[in-house]
Amino acid sequence: MSPSSTQISRALSTFKPADPLTIHDINPNTVTAKYAVRGKIPIIADGLQDLIKSQPQSHGLPFNKIINANIGNPQQLDQRPLTWYRQVLSILQYPGILETNVDYPKDVVERAKTILESIGSLGAYSHSQGAAYFRKSIADFIERRDGYPSNPHNLFLTSGASTAVSYLIQILSADPNSGFLIPIPQYPLYTATIALNNAKPIGYYLDESNHWSTNPEEIRELIKKNQDEGINIKALVVINPGNPTGSILSPQDMIEIIDIAAEYGLVLIADEVYQENIFKGKFISFKRVLCELLEMEPETYQHVQLASLHSTSKGVSGECGQRGGYMELVGFNTEVRDIVFKLASINLCSVVSGQALMELMINPPKAGDESYELYKAETKAIHNDLEKRADLLYHAFLEMENIECNKPMGAMYLFPSLTFDEEKYHKLYSRAKNSDLGIDDIYCVELLENTGICCIPGNGFGQKPGTYHLRTTFLPPGQEWIDRWTKFHKQFIEKYKD
Amino acid sequence: MSPSSTQISRALSTFKPADPLTIHDINPNTVTAKYAVRGKIPIIADGLQDLIKSQPQSHGLPFNKIINANIGNPQQLDQRPLTWYRQVLSILQYPGILETNVDYPKDVVERAKTILESIGSLGAYSHSQGAAYFRKSIADFIERRDGYPSNPHNLFLTSGASTAVSYLIQILSADPNSGFLIPIPQYPLYTATIALNNAKPIGYYLDESNHWSTNPEEIRELIKKNQDEGINIKALVVINPGNPTGSILSPQDMIEIIDIAAEYGLVLIADEVYQENIFKGKFISFKRVLCELLEMEPETYQHVQLASLHSTSKGVSGECGQRGGYMELVGFNTEVRDIVFKLASINLCSVVSGQALMELMINPPKAGDESYELYKAETKAIHNDLEKRADLLYHAFLEMENIECNKPMGAMYLFPSLTFDEEKYHKLYSRAKNSDLGIDDIYCVELLENTGICCIPGNGFGQKPGTYHLRTTFLPPGQEWIDRWTKFHKQFIEKYKD
Repeated sequence: MSPSSTQISRALSTFKPADPLTIHDINPNTVTAKYAVRGKIPIIADGLQDLIKSQPQSHGLPFNKIINANIGNPQQLDQRPLTWYRQVLSILQYPGILETNVDYPKDVVERAKTILESIGSLGAYSHSQGAAYFRKSIADFIERRDGYPSNPHNLFLTSGASTAVSYLIQILSADPNSGFLIPIPQYPLYTATIALNNAKPIGYYLDESNHWSTNPEEIRELIKKNQDEGINIKALVVINPGNPTGSILSPQDMIEIIDIAAEYGLVLIADEVYQENIFKGKFISFKRVLCELLEMEPETYQHVQLASLHSTSKGVSGECGQRGGYMELVGFNTEVRDIVFKLASINLCSVVSGQALMELMINPPKAGDESYELYKAETKAIHNDLEKRADLLYHAFLEMENIECNKPMGAMYLFPSLTFDEEKYHKLYSRAKNSDLGIDDIYCVELLENTGICCIPGNGFGQKPGTYHLRTTFLPPGQEWIDRWTKFHKQFIEKYKD
Repeated sequence: MSPSSTQISRALSTFKPADPLTIHDINPNTVTAKYAVRGKIPIIADGLQDLIKSQPQSHGLPFNKIINANIGNPQQLDQRPLTWYRQVLSILQYPGILETNVDYPKDVVERAKTILESIGSLGAYSHSQGAAYFRKSIADFIERRDGYPSNPHNLFLTSGASTAVSYLIQILSADPNSGFLIPIPQYPLYTATIALNNAKPIGYYLDESNHWSTNPEEIRELIKKNQDEGINIKALVVINPGNPTGSILSPQDMIEIIDIAAEYGLVLIADEVYQENIFKGKFISFKRVLCELLEMEPETYQHVQLASLHSTSKGVSGECGQRGGYMELVGFNTEVRDIVFKLASINLCSVVSGQALMELMINPPKAGDESYELYKAETKAIHNDLEKRADLLYHAFLEMENIECNKPMGAMYLFPSLTFDEEKYHKLYSRAKNSDLGIDDIYCVELLENTGICCIPGNGFGQKPGTYHLRTTFLPPGQEWIDRWTKFHKQFIEKYKD
């Protein structure tokens, strides 16, 4: 199979070759950026997984598979994709299927035809912001959700929500004194992207003792302190429902946050990708609260700059690998909005099948449509399943000594606190001191090595000094992995108790 | 449909709201970056398209549709996707299709099953570099193509080739004195990304009089001159087959370029996305030439750092909207490679359907497979069609007065030169001077306004001072658009001739 030689012939080279680049020759921001969700512990887990695969009989580990609780990736576990999404997408990929005997519901065929008529082919680049048809449909969804209009001109289809975060932080990082207020704990995409852009993360603590709520006084103090130090704060990031906390902000908290954005001219980055993952009550968007405030006091709120992010990766969709998402901009200066457009143009467009999926997610079958009953049943089952899994794990944590955990309200994670007492667990703390590891690092590594369960130490998300947490998804199915965790936890206590 | 109010009630705010951010408050690199392919002229074209759509009877334009020759987007024009790709992808999207009466070829079903067994679901995040199965298959392809092995550990699946360019330039931009050698003319993704990273583009001219070949002497001189000025040159970009030039480098040119990379320790970024778009002969990759040199003189070439890029957007695939691509790294320091891995991790993964498409593209049906004949017929027809279209447009340019054009050898573009004489076309040049536009700008705007044909002025790609070009794809079908262009060209000459 080997191609014939190119028959190059030449005199021997006469130059002295140079050494390759080292880590000291490259962009230091790319070296220092950290991303724990796919960091050290998941990399160890990947290695163990490879070992199990290559030596299934003789790997010598006390488990036979890795449980990836480190990342919200439902379909890697056992969540099945929704039939409605996938049937429409299969037609979009191969419209010729309609000329075969395939027996699809009428609304599936109709939606696929409508999309194909407006976009042509999934294989063509779309408009840089995403196809006009999808943006119009998303604007309609936002209006239904909030009761206030949305302008398709200010919607950007993105690859998950990550691209949106990347655009915003890149644009707002004017210089090394540009600051970003981020919650602690946070999703480490924010600290990673801020580091890549050589800007300054300013962590504000969420109040663990009060369901991880925000404390507006503390945020205002941080703003003043940083402004005094010459930091030019550009944006305030809020993740609601919370990652990694699983909490939900009250409307009152949201108003206080909008007030801060209005007073200091900060871009409010509202990461709302878990908006469908709410166990009780209905999701309230920042856009909606802002619009209500605007009706009351237009002068005060007219210049609030809000970027709201959504994604197909979460919700009951869980279509992480399809890379669909959108960002809505509100109140941005046109010139600044045009810079976002330019960045989107440089990337040409987000994947068009992901754009279509975003539309299918926010514009699902309606009562009376042929797909409706199945869609309803599947989404309800997933929703119930997620709540049940959250509850199982939460109750297991409640039973564990030296673990405290807030009741999960939404999202896909729990962020329990490890409350080992320093005197009683002297061996644990001295091991930590000697190895330069945190209590959370030691716990997560031993959990992985003993059970195959991969979760992430709290320090990857940020936590108050002297506290130790871990983030775990509650997505893995069944009770068995939880029992294994409980058993490990007891052994861990035995091992380190004085 | 409107949701009930959140019933927020509050005392009137007491703070003074701040102004929103302006273009002066944001990252100046994002403001200065330019991307002509979706820049000023395509934006005018979008506006005209909207006008035609909203007022089909009364738009008042001398044409009824825009011909998007500004971007290599075959499926936006009339190119149909390959049946083989799309049938497999339709199963990957909805495996349940196999339980219906759909009548797919056996090899389509088998490939889809093999992929699903190894990746699980398209909806799960894959490994950050792309699913192991796809990387192994791509490594096998590279070995078949070049006759030398490839390591899946050094393969990164990307969103088209753009993500790969973005990772590389971001990592190599250590400070504002980091320099990147890029061909002039170039694909403006390079200048845009260099600008976003506040690094320095160093243009080396391709030799238009010699089929846009490279001039190693000039590159060496540029390196010395820039090093003397304190510029730390990090990489040398080569686009082969050429965009926008449509030319192909000789093996001798490729050796000279590798020598330069070896001597100066530069990362060689080989943009090889048009490797299937070659009208005569076979594609020779930089990897292959490097491996042959390594066999001859291992000491000299062992540290050459090569990044080779490929994409599903080009070739006969033309699946731009599916955002598939890969990058192979060779000779990189492990620590530097791990930084690329970290950036890929921060982005979670490239779209998994695009990863699958990349695999289908480089591992197509073989003789004897049920899909083979159709696949062969479809690819051959597209290939022939592209060559025919290139030839038609090329010959039309040959006939036009004041246009010179190199014979197209590959890729999807022609980059003809506008050779209007300054004395004879005094009116044209003085119009240019008065409006601060180039001859190429005026030509492209008038072409668009008179014919609906959208192509890009050469200044968006770079050209020698005092020369004027335009880049056009040769993808639009038929003769009619070419005739319209020819007619316009004659009128343009009449209008501006003294």
